Amino acid sequence: MLGMFQSLGLGGQWRLPGNTSVDFLNLDHWVTMAKRLDEAGIDFLFFADDYAYPILNGAVIDTAIEKAIQFPRADPLVILSALALATTNLGLVATSSTTIERPQSLARRFATLDHLTQGRFGWNVVTGAGQNSSAKLFGDTMLPHAERYAIAEDHLNLSLKLWEGSWQDDALQVDRVNGVYADASKVHEIEHNGPYFSAHGMLTVPPSPQRTPLLFQAGTSSTGRELAATYAEAVFLASEPELVKAQIADVRARAAAHGRGPDAIKFLVAGSFIVAETEAEAHALRDTMVGFGTLETAAAAYAFFTGLDLLSMDLDKPLATVKTEQGRTNVERFSGENGAPAPTVREILEEFRSNGVMGRPFIGTPEQAVDQAQLLIEQTGADGFLVQPDPTGTHDDFIDMVVPVLRERGLMNTDHAGSTLRERLFGVGHRRLPAEHPGAAFRVPSGPSVDS
Amino acid sequence: MLGMFQSLGLGGQWRLPGNTSVDFLNLDHWVTMAKRLDEAGIDFLFFADDYAYPILNGAVIDTAIEKAIQFPRADPLVILSALALATTNLGLVATSSTTIERPQSLARRFATLDHLTQGRFGWNVVTGAGQNSSAKLFGDTMLPHAERYAIAEDHLNLSLKLWEGSWQDDALQVDRVNGVYADASKVHEIEHNGPYFSAHGMLTVPPSPQRTPLLFQAGTSSTGRELAATYAEAVFLASEPELVKAQIADVRARAAAHGRGPDAIKFLVAGSFIVAETEAEAHALRDTMVGFGTLETAAAAYAFFTGLDLLSMDLDKPLATVKTEQGRTNVERFSGENGAPAPTVREILEEFRSNGVMGRPFIGTPEQAVDQAQLLIEQTGADGFLVQPDPTGTHDDFIDMVVPVLRERGLMNTDHAGSTLRERLFGVGHRRLPAEHPGAAFRVPSGPSVDS
Repeated sequence: MLGMFQSLGLGGQWRLPGNTSVDFLNLDHWVTMAKRLDEAGIDFLFFADDYAYPILNGAVIDTAIEKAIQFPRADPLVILSALALATTNLGLVATSSTTIERPQSLARRFATLDHLTQGRFGWNVVTGAGQNSSAKLFGDTMLPHAERYAIAEDHLNLSLKLWEGSWQDDALQVDRVNGVYADASKVHEIEHNGPYFSAHGMLTVPPSPQRTPLLFQAGTSSTGRELAATYAEAVFLASEPELVKAQIADVRARAAAHGRGPDAIKFLVAGSFIVAETEAEAHALRDTMVGFGTLETAAAAYAFFTGLDLLSMDLDKPLATVKTEQGRTNVERFSGENGAPAPTVREILEEFRSNGVMGRPFIGTPEQAVDQAQLLIEQTGADGFLVQPDPTGTHDDFIDMVVPVLRERGLMNTDHAGSTLRERLFGVGHRRLPAEHPGAAFRVPSGPSVDS
Repeated sequence: MLGMFQSLGLGGQWRLPGNTSVDFLNLDHWVTMAKRLDEAGIDFLFFADDYAYPILNGAVIDTAIEKAIQFPRADPLVILSALALATTNLGLVATSSTTIERPQSLARRFATLDHLTQGRFGWNVVTGAGQNSSAKLFGDTMLPHAERYAIAEDHLNLSLKLWEGSWQDDALQVDRVNGVYADASKVHEIEHNGPYFSAHGMLTVPPSPQRTPLLFQAGTSSTGRELAATYAEAVFLASEPELVKAQIADVRARAAAHGRGPDAIKFLVAGSFIVAETEAEAHALRDTMVGFGTLETAAAAYAFFTGLDLLSMDLDKPLATVKTEQGRTNVERFSGENGAPAPTVREILEEFRSNGVMGRPFIGTPEQAVDQAQLLIEQTGADGFLVQPDPTGTHDDFIDMVVPVLRERGLMNTDHAGSTLRERLFGVGHRRLPAEHPGAAFRVPSGPSVDS
């Protein structure tokens, strides 16, 4: 299972000649990319998103603006219909925050997108990520981690009610002769009185192919894993193999405790591919890429994810365990949790400069890279990859060099012409949430009118 | 000046054979329409929007669901990039409410859309319209009219700061060799501490062609006219000629008092065209259309706009002046304000059934309809029309029959290839807000760095 990771912003390798991510505000840039992914048989294109940018002590970090670190960024939701128009099978996934967006707006927007994409839309649920610059932008104070997750749960319950509970399956008539658009007894105003959101009203959009978009989630904290185990249908992970394996086992166990089946959730690991005709060329390319980074750019990126100012610390000592505003002490793989000795701050910055937040790349010839990727799948039990942009900023290298190897080895998802994104991940017939998902409880059974 | 009015919902004439508005959730429906409008030289496509639907006594009106009265409705913002991809010159305008949407989200979304449309995007500013069903959907109580407008002003000021004040004109560098994406001393976090919104942060989207989207407004109350006079660049009116004329004069006078020029605002009147080869055919078509309506459907639509339940009143007496929750007593043209004797409730419903909220159509042969439309322009001093969907649900009749007559008479806007929407309305060179607009005050002058 292969999704491609992008954001509507600049790629980390924008300085490389031929990197086209500087065109990220040009529609043709994305249309060309989406068409290629669609033709190559990629399952979906995934847009990360965040209102945040790197700040320290309440102000933007100049290096982030100058070097384009987690900045600039535009809104990916409004580009999706153009990509839907240009493609036929590619899934389209976008990130929206339950802390920032209102569920009633988002439910209508996503129902519209599920129609316009003909059921190819997915939502990556985030709680506002780990930065307080977005909170400041919105005139809020950063909410504690646990509260953000409580909001997310309330948000999801209201959104699911609107998607699943407003229209019975047989409500829509579109009968011109008798002048009946819909059976009024089968369209319902829902009621919600949650701890954070209240609503009395209905989704004014007729049922879309999937009703609820395919639900992605990426939280790796204990609270995040619990949210994923309850609601997510696909989980995105980025860490060392042993940690990924443990996280998958943990989410699976939690999902089972909620009565969800062992295959209710697909797990996708971050994968960066740096490939060339020879191993030496691939490493030379990587050296060029790493060479663009400095301790300052690494620190700006690190500050974005954690709120920590590593450059203000003693570079030659291990990172003290600091509880940041975001409730995050550190980027996971430097926490020593995986049994390795705690690295120094300088080592953390060097590692971050080399491999970023997504970790070590699969590197070498296409065959070598695929060998490494296959090994990771075996080690972790993951279902596939969320592939990072390659050095071009697009996925052209991946399509041209890696996909043929995957195809030879029978590792590409087979054709799913005309199917929804949920069917693409879970098989034909799985257009809607399964009965075990909490969203299914909000459905009003179809059949005879409830009022009659 | 010609804009075409649509909503992402069902047209009033969906029951007519050949009306294609039932396809409103199909991307191809809109792409086909937008392409035809673009080729015909229409200035822009305008999407009305509202989260509301007709309710009375706190519950949805069954007739509204059954007959599709101001229902169903989907989110037009997410369809625009597909239409931008399919067209080259057509302006694209969408409605968003300052009461419901957060300025920080909306500013980023609209900046993205202005890029994706290459400067062809406009925003119709509404304050949440006159219905309390949207307030109930969002778990709020309906705010008083004056407060909604105070929120709108605060919202606009924050949005304008983000668009105009975040990036100096010469901030963007995109210098790969030296690794400078933007000059950090020329990208600014803005500060806003308004009565309703606070913010400390910046727009993470580089400057779009227009920066601020072209600003539309449609309020006709005194408060609404004041907001339009302060901020709007195009105003949409729907009323009797004498009222339209008076409203235009009033908004122009108010705009002048704000130091804005006499041509700072374009005025567009609602125009419905029912045309056929012969006058008799056009009237027969209209009779069929009016025949789909009943007192009940007229009352549901009336309730949507005013909150009043006309069917609960004595049909044979004039409408008592009732101050509704929305602060609206009546649909304007029935208020007796224009000097006519106050009609009975039944007469109001009959008139509403025949002509809806947009008023009497221009009807007959294309030449006759254009004569009527030209007369209205002469009577009111308006700059053009916001044309309602024709009986097809699209604008195919208008394009096929009315546009050729307009062209013959030299009334079509001439070619503006490659221009922004603001230039299309105000002439080449007017890409950005003029210096007299309040948004211009938020700019940081370009030139030497402010920090140096």
